Amino acid sequence: MFRSYHTVRALYDSGPHKFVEVNGWIQSIRHLKRIAFIDLRDGTSTRSLKIAIPLVDQSLTEPLKSLKTGQCISISQAEWVPTPQREQPFELRVGNVLRDVQILGNVTSQYPLQKKSHSLPFLRTLPHLKHRSNYLGSLLRFRSHVEHAFIQFFAQNEFIKVAPPLITSSDCEGGGELFKVEDSENYFGRSAYLTVSAQLHLEALSLALNRCYTLSPSFRAEKSDTNRHLSEFWMLEAEWCFAKDVSELTHFTQNMLRSVIKSCYDNKNELIPRIIPQESEQASTILQRLENLCKDGNWPSVTYTEAIDILRDQHVNVKPFPNYEPQWGSALQSEHEKWLAGEYFQSPVFVTDYPKDCKAFYMKHNDDGQTVACFDLLVPGMGEIVGGSMRENDYTKLIKEMDRRQMNHNGDLDWYVSLRQEGSAPHGGFGLGIERLVSYLYGNRNIRDAIPFHRAATGTIEL
Amino acid sequence: MFRSYHTVRALYDSGPHKFVEVNGWIQSIRHLKRIAFIDLRDGTSTRSLKIAIPLVDQSLTEPLKSLKTGQCISISQAEWVPTPQREQPFELRVGNVLRDVQILGNVTSQYPLQKKSHSLPFLRTLPHLKHRSNYLGSLLRFRSHVEHAFIQFFAQNEFIKVAPPLITSSDCEGGGELFKVEDSENYFGRSAYLTVSAQLHLEALSLALNRCYTLSPSFRAEKSDTNRHLSEFWMLEAEWCFAKDVSELTHFTQNMLRSVIKSCYDNKNELIPRIIPQESEQASTILQRLENLCKDGNWPSVTYTEAIDILRDQHVNVKPFPNYEPQWGSALQSEHEKWLAGEYFQSPVFVTDYPKDCKAFYMKHNDDGQTVACFDLLVPGMGEIVGGSMRENDYTKLIKEMDRRQMNHNGDLDWYVSLRQEGSAPHGGFGLGIERLVSYLYGNRNIRDAIPFHRAATGTIEL
Repeated sequence: MFRSYHTVRALYDSGPHKFVEVNGWIQSIRHLKRIAFIDLRDGTSTRSLKIAIPLVDQSLTEPLKSLKTGQCISISQAEWVPTPQREQPFELRVGNVLRDVQILGNVTSQYPLQKKSHSLPFLRTLPHLKHRSNYLGSLLRFRSHVEHAFIQFFAQNEFIKVAPPLITSSDCEGGGELFKVEDSENYFGRSAYLTVSAQLHLEALSLALNRCYTLSPSFRAEKSDTNRHLSEFWMLEAEWCFAKDVSELTHFTQNMLRSVIKSCYDNKNELIPRIIPQESEQASTILQRLENLCKDGNWPSVTYTEAIDILRDQHVNVKPFPNYEPQWGSALQSEHEKWLAGEYFQSPVFVTDYPKDCKAFYMKHNDDGQTVACFDLLVPGMGEIVGGSMRENDYTKLIKEMDRRQMNHNGDLDWYVSLRQEGSAPHGGFGLGIERLVSYLYGNRNIRDAIPFHRAATGTIEL
Repeated sequence: MFRSYHTVRALYDSGPHKFVEVNGWIQSIRHLKRIAFIDLRDGTSTRSLKIAIPLVDQSLTEPLKSLKTGQCISISQAEWVPTPQREQPFELRVGNVLRDVQILGNVTSQYPLQKKSHSLPFLRTLPHLKHRSNYLGSLLRFRSHVEHAFIQFFAQNEFIKVAPPLITSSDCEGGGELFKVEDSENYFGRSAYLTVSAQLHLEALSLALNRCYTLSPSFRAEKSDTNRHLSEFWMLEAEWCFAKDVSELTHFTQNMLRSVIKSCYDNKNELIPRIIPQESEQASTILQRLENLCKDGNWPSVTYTEAIDILRDQHVNVKPFPNYEPQWGSALQSEHEKWLAGEYFQSPVFVTDYPKDCKAFYMKHNDDGQTVACFDLLVPGMGEIVGGSMRENDYTKLIKEMDRRQMNHNGDLDWYVSLRQEGSAPHGGFGLGIERLVSYLYGNRNIRDAIPFHRAATGTIEL
């Protein structure tokens, strides 16, 4: 189907080979007197090929010298041979540079990616080239692997992949942080916005399809300029019927994440680079984290009320949280979340049963009248990466809650409410921020690097 | 992970079972004197369960009578037993309605989906309920299966799944049919729009990752009110390096589609309903189509110039096309496309090498100076469903073409052009409209049904 050439990934999976064709980009080159060594990447793996090109004839001096970092080259004929080095168990031997090596794409003398490793601040100044660096290229491969693993997990568990609308008329979360589509009144007959969550539409679909999920973009017009916020991000949202309670949701979430993380760990050699910019977590830290997360046993789970007790104890008796005093009834702040997961539990932790006023209108009320049947999953360094709940399935309670919040005055959500009257089922689900999860697992600390071209409140759109 | 109950799909995959728990929705119910028969669906399959509930005791008359179409019920204990009927080889036998059947979600007396089969125009009046019909529910399962098959194909072929931006500053296709994000200048520092294609960003990524693809929404603010146009639709876009020519692209496209279609055909019993609304193609037609598309052999491929000859011959000698005379240099109209694929070739057909002025600026120029190295895949009934090309990789030629089209005056696309100067590679790819493909394969004829909640130029956003 493709022209028959070897990818780097396929070469490492194969044994020695006599006639190998590869294509890729020169990441670095060392010119010695009688030989040149090339570090070639082709985008399919975090690993590179070491290529040896001997100077078999003085007439080849110039062609050999013309090879430069950044060029795209094609090697039409070479041999993939074992070496005695453990670090580099194979290398590619080229016979004749003139015959076997072709420059497909040259570089200018200003080509900026000259070194083996660049700092992240430097790479971020080159949005159209930065993914050629091994670190950010590997990050995108890692993300792709994560997405593929999620999709496989959902397919195996009989979930239907659905495409809820991006252009919507309702503010699902009630936060009011919406991008508006200009002139939408003229085009769609009413004001329309970019979705903040597919939640409400997924509920309608789950009552038809039983189990459904989507992997699609969401938008938040909040002006938070942090390493955890994007204006445009991807959410994995799942919704299913016949769930019993929140513990079923957290159990599902943990199993799902563990299956994805196991798949990443099993492919660590392809996915995790060895050389990592100093701003990011190093390979040994990442691998240790993945290994720990794969271990059997349940991640800790506490109620919001218990979490507040733990936080207050810390705040009052040990060291106050600098910006916010933890208080029952208030949302957990990012600093609280990070401390709970990163320092207190040193593990992902589920926090369940938040006060109803901290959460969206659609969550199922608990019998205490104060809290709702929900959970957040907090992880070290990042805070919340998943939020889910059972949905209020009782028509009367839902109406009452929406009235209390002064919602649905214009009847926009009548369709949503009516789902509770017509063959409804107990159901629940969650939303997971892909970029936050990827950054947590890959250790890159800034979710703006976890999406190829980020959109955020600060800084213009460069491309 | 889930509470242990059987899905309909899993039940049909299993043999006889003594203790079965199922959950689902009553699609129809027949009350006889001493027994009731329920047709139960649970959203996981186009097939339903036949459930027999005997009236073992007169005191159960009322509970049995309270079961109604549309209700969501849970059956906690039943037996899955073989029957002598070939059409319905198994049925579920319930012992006692009071003990074993629980109504999870009741319906009002106005529940609109009473019949076994409804017309599509009627279903479309119920956007929040319509996917509970077997036909539209099956359509969404079919779409999900198609998406999963694509994703599997790309993963197996070492493609990286990427997430290009939805909010962009450039009009990739140059058509000017853009939705604008209101107040984007204030938020992003410049005017921003919803993407019409990820093409340009995918090119940058393919030069880093070798092979990449995305399955993501695109937007077109065109006011076409046809059964082939949506304002918001999903595109599968793929881009890869080291492609040689257009025939490699069409070969790839054909193999990819055949692999997806084979997977649908192999799962036809789960995916294709037997009873289909009369407005749509019937099951026998769909199955025949899928079977034909799976057969070995290449789909026909003609150049645009050859296609125009064929069309002109038809127009002049047989019967004129009512609205447009086919003419070299003009775009193929939908009626031309449909006639070529549907009547002349009666097969999907690749049309290659269109005149450059019919296509976007980024396509590679052929040596004739007139045409570009591109293809469209046309299919019967739907016209174009895939469009692809080799990309102009020559810096000078690209600049010249952009100048000719008076593009890039403000330098917005400098990053794109510079890709040709810094380690570029020959590359190409395509975009495929998911809703058009699904409608073609599933035979539903109107792409508005192929997405759960459609957005189009006419009609307001209902939910």
